[in-house]
Amino acid sequence: MTQRQSPTRSANGLAQPLGHASLRRANLALVLRHLREEGSCSRADIADSTGLHRATVSNLMAELLERGLVREVGTERAGAIGRPRRAVALDGSHVGALGMEINVDYIAVHGTDLSGRVLVERRIGFDAMGQGPDRSLAELGRVTRRVIGDMKRAGAFPGGIVVGVPGLVDSEGVVAFAPNLDWHGLPLADRLREELGGLPIPVSVDNDANLAALAEYTSGVAAGTSDMVSLTGEVGVGGGIIVGGRLLRGADGFSGEVGHLPVDPGGSRCGCGRVGCWETKVGFAALVRSATPDQAYGQDTGLDTGLNTGHIAAPTPDPEERVREIARGLADGDERTMGAVAEVGRWLGLGGSILANLFNPRVIVIGGYFARLAEQLIPPAQAQLEQLVIAGPAARCRFMASNLGFGAASRGAASMVVDHIMDDPTAIGSAPIAHNIAGQRI
Amino acid sequence: MTQRQSPTRSANGLAQPLGHASLRRANLALVLRHLREEGSCSRADIADSTGLHRATVSNLMAELLERGLVREVGTERAGAIGRPRRAVALDGSHVGALGMEINVDYIAVHGTDLSGRVLVERRIGFDAMGQGPDRSLAELGRVTRRVIGDMKRAGAFPGGIVVGVPGLVDSEGVVAFAPNLDWHGLPLADRLREELGGLPIPVSVDNDANLAALAEYTSGVAAGTSDMVSLTGEVGVGGGIIVGGRLLRGADGFSGEVGHLPVDPGGSRCGCGRVGCWETKVGFAALVRSATPDQAYGQDTGLDTGLNTGHIAAPTPDPEERVREIARGLADGDERTMGAVAEVGRWLGLGGSILANLFNPRVIVIGGYFARLAEQLIPPAQAQLEQLVIAGPAARCRFMASNLGFGAASRGAASMVVDHIMDDPTAIGSAPIAHNIAGQRI
Repeated sequence: MTQRQSPTRSANGLAQPLGHASLRRANLALVLRHLREEGSCSRADIADSTGLHRATVSNLMAELLERGLVREVGTERAGAIGRPRRAVALDGSHVGALGMEINVDYIAVHGTDLSGRVLVERRIGFDAMGQGPDRSLAELGRVTRRVIGDMKRAGAFPGGIVVGVPGLVDSEGVVAFAPNLDWHGLPLADRLREELGGLPIPVSVDNDANLAALAEYTSGVAAGTSDMVSLTGEVGVGGGIIVGGRLLRGADGFSGEVGHLPVDPGGSRCGCGRVGCWETKVGFAALVRSATPDQAYGQDTGLDTGLNTGHIAAPTPDPEERVREIARGLADGDERTMGAVAEVGRWLGLGGSILANLFNPRVIVIGGYFARLAEQLIPPAQAQLEQLVIAGPAARCRFMASNLGFGAASRGAASMVVDHIMDDPTAIGSAPIAHNIAGQRI
Repeated sequence: MTQRQSPTRSANGLAQPLGHASLRRANLALVLRHLREEGSCSRADIADSTGLHRATVSNLMAELLERGLVREVGTERAGAIGRPRRAVALDGSHVGALGMEINVDYIAVHGTDLSGRVLVERRIGFDAMGQGPDRSLAELGRVTRRVIGDMKRAGAFPGGIVVGVPGLVDSEGVVAFAPNLDWHGLPLADRLREELGGLPIPVSVDNDANLAALAEYTSGVAAGTSDMVSLTGEVGVGGGIIVGGRLLRGADGFSGEVGHLPVDPGGSRCGCGRVGCWETKVGFAALVRSATPDQAYGQDTGLDTGLNTGHIAAPTPDPEERVREIARGLADGDERTMGAVAEVGRWLGLGGSILANLFNPRVIVIGGYFARLAEQLIPPAQAQLEQLVIAGPAARCRFMASNLGFGAASRGAASMVVDHIMDDPTAIGSAPIAHNIAGQRI
């Protein structure tokens, strides 16, 4: 039984027995989150409201203080009865969360402190596909070291790094397959750790669409919606799925490959080699082909082998410019453009109804180019969805346009770091070590 | 923030701050599961190993004793140091878990005690569709009261009841739509509570395919596999999905409608009114039609409006007999039958690959008639799956035949009751009340 989780355990999830180490982590997390919700408290208050022994709380607090996650804040705030007692509060300011994304043609950075305050935000053009894995990793390492320095100067040493990649990433941080980067079995997490030369910062790697979904869940238009699907809308269509307030990962971390739903057996060939995949209907290349055929991508959608990536496979005319052009066409009332967008909207709704029947999400957030054309895409998509979803009106699911734009993945990566730290404060180096390391020239 | 769950919180899930009531529930659950894993312990040991204050543990223990969930077991077991101390142990024997299923043509019962020991197992033929909701509820109430009496005589008063229904069930226990029973917006949980005349037993209702998935997860061929899909194989094809060790429910409890994946736009009409749904290819009616056309179901699959039900919509020739006949055809090497089964296997693999791309399960467990014909169905299904899944060999997903047969849903319902009690021991009536009530004539 110890290997199993209860499929129906309560939201607070105390289903498994906790070993001593994991129990201590759980108690550290409990105290930390209590402080995040309640503000400053005395150790005695924390003991009373958590049911933990006071000695246990003092002991936990000593560790949180050493790790720079809490600070003494003098006496307890007004309203407390009895003699004033020394209180502690969450101190996010000295601990940073570094989110990165390396993609086909850029590296994006989003650095915050534990409170979510943005310290660094950057998007650097870089031809990762052209440069290959080794030079890409060297560049990623260089950018990462520089950003760590910037964050340190801003007063926050990163307590963790999460890197988003357009591909299939396993739980060990190995990129099993990133078609648009032509990476196969690349141990990205280990390689980046090497690049950081032994800095004691936990590094993990995740799929970019998963991280974008996390950003939508934590700070997007449907933030806090515990069952939602997030779609990246570019040449490839990636999906990130939030189920019961958690990111759906699957057995290997390969869930959410929505772009290759077979929706049209008689359709055109997809970059993945199959026929009639959803992204051959709703991917950006499909729209360009039907709206502005004179500017269509090279060989059909052959450029795209996008698996859950939401990025194009090869340097092409700036997609931004193409989207603007299509938007102009819509503004000018161009028949062909309006028809093409409406058709994409209908296919978006058909695929959305499949996702609604399987996941029963409350919201489907559409990003990338979908968001840019949302005004014209959502009405036909929503109509199609409502007509096709099995539960009918009972399942209230609606499309919403993302407002996060580019950088959603790196933003989600940073929020994942914050969650990692709140869930396991023991994972980060203690403050003294951090300062010592941060003192190095990086 | 308090409304949100962290999408990435740790397995022990202590992400949310806990209010006093939920904290007490969590601590009761922690102590209960500690006893389940560790066997008998002294209160002092529990305090030491959980970090809870000894007074808190004694207080929690008093409640668990009163509710009949633990018992004093004399002095601590050998190996303990210091003077012997009175120990307590989990006592599942006096608390029962009652799982029920009401379906098109039967009512099934699976009653256990907290330790999982089976006390009652029964399958009663009943034409629920013909009788309509009111008479069906009266019968369900009658059967339930009788079984409660049987369980009481076996020494275990039910600490909860979960009822499985072939349809869309919301979180309040209202059957939004059960097409094969022609139930619409039926408040089944409330109605059954009335039928039980105020017995203090929590009643909840769930989709039968979800409960079957739970049974597979807790006691099936792939028990403990934290990412799996379970398929019911009858005229309708229902799906239950386990994600990260939890049942996927979705925003309204309407997830897992796998039977109506659109796989063949040019295909035949489904009972749901759409064209080319997956169950028109792999549902039992489709197999019968192609394997033994002379015995095909009435109007195409028109009988079937199966939504996640895995049951037939109207009294028809015994499906058991039809399956045996098809098995005989395979044994005799009948060309038509073998071809029909192989074709169903290929469509099973195609639909399976869609589920694998979205959920990345480790196992797809096939029940109902699929399990009976697994030897011939799985090879073509597995080959198709491996050819179509995007992650390729990296995503190791295989089909397995269920060995739970009929009654999987009621078995899963009983295990859900056990989980409910372990997660929230406060939900069950205290032992004295239970005995008092159990003393009534029921």
